[in-house]
Amino acid sequence: MRQSLHELTIPTRGRGLYDFTDQVSAWLAKNRFQTGLVTLHLRHTSASLLIQENADPDVRRDLEAFFSRLVPDGDPLFIHTAEGDDDMPAHVRTALTTVNLSLPVHRGRLALGTWQGIYLWEHRRAPHSRTITLHFVGE
Amino acid sequence: MRQSLHELTIPTRGRGLYDFTDQVSAWLAKNRFQTGLVTLHLRHTSASLLIQENADPDVRRDLEAFFSRLVPDGDPLFIHTAEGDDDMPAHVRTALTTVNLSLPVHRGRLALGTWQGIYLWEHRRAPHSRTITLHFVGE
Amino acid sequence: MRQSLHELTIPTRGRGLYDFTDQVSAWLAKNRFQTGLVTLHLRHTSASLLIQENADPDVRRDLEAFFSRLVPDGDPLFIHTAEGDDDMPAHVRTALTTVNLSLPVHRGRLALGTWQGIYLWEHRRAPHSRTITLHFVGE
Repeated sequence: MRQSLHELTIPTRGRGLYDFTDQVSAWLAKNRFQTGLVTLHLRHTSASLLIQENADPDVRRDLEAFFSRLVPDGDPLFIHTAEGDDDMPAHVRTALTTVNLSLPVHRGRLALGTWQGIYLWEHRRAPHSRTITLHFVGE
Repeated sequence: MRQSLHELTIPTRGRGLYDFTDQVSAWLAKNRFQTGLVTLHLRHTSASLLIQENADPDVRRDLEAFFSRLVPDGDPLFIHTAEGDDDMPAHVRTALTTVNLSLPVHRGRLALGTWQGIYLWEHRRAPHSRTITLHFVGE
Repeated sequence: MRQSLHELTIPTRGRGLYDFTDQVSAWLAKNRFQTGLVTLHLRHTSASLLIQENADPDVRRDLEAFFSRLVPDGDPLFIHTAEGDDDMPAHVRTALTTVNLSLPVHRGRLALGTWQGIYLWEHRRAPHSRTITLHFVGE
């Protein structure tokens, strides 16, 4: 049994879902990890990690539309508006989703379903650079 | 230290919460796992994993009622309606909950609280067959 | 590679967010864990674990305000009201967030971002005592 740590940096062009499944798979392949557990941790409080459908782009469009309606930018409920009217909504959207994912690895591949991709969900409207720590334990 | 992978298939009769705690516990017992970490990953994007109260069935009824009101079937906001009016709501409900769980194992048992059960939450109205990958690392 | 289990008990003074990052870090330091994975599991169904901003307290105030409006106490939709009008809202708020967290450990420290803290979110209005099981695997 062995373990390994790695860091990914994902640049975003503002609010939306960014598929980075290939970058996780490439790290597994490079290290020849066969069986084990990969944990991903996003080191930010205004963006999320999400496993969602990777086929029809309308799913991502609809997810974004739903969350924008549920947690509207500029909601007068919020008093933390230091960085703009999308600041607090980004924190709420992060709380409603997650910053942690754990995925089994089987025969060198992520145990994802056929239609599952791993996404970084940027909740701020401006471009950001987001850092994800990866941990693997296994063989 | 050792590890193991397993796959569970849960048939559903449509939307609702299905307790499968016993199936996870049975796998631990069969392999005589004593101390470690179990990770569960659901390989779908229109159903969730949830740890919730296993005592009063009204809790499950109320959870379902709340989510049905929050993410209504047939909402005109959604354009991804390929598989029916419960298609996109199922993706949103999955995003609002999770498809990953990680549970410590202590003295051969899941470190669940007295009132906690592990549920598969089917978000589609039609019956489905859902696959969960289990990973154990420990002793 | 080794592993370890531990239990934390956090007393709450009622609804709100309680930072317990230091207690997790102290456990790592005491055991001289250098590299690995920490998993936290909260053994309750009416409180959550949350990673959120630890700088401006207005973020916690706004998170609480948003969730109180989204899942109002005393909502006539709910029939599970055995323990009061904040009983079922506490279960829903737990379902919308999580009771599981997994964090890589690097050079003896949690791989948290600069602004991230680990919180227990008490969803009941009365004070409670909450138990969290910690698991570490690594070196």
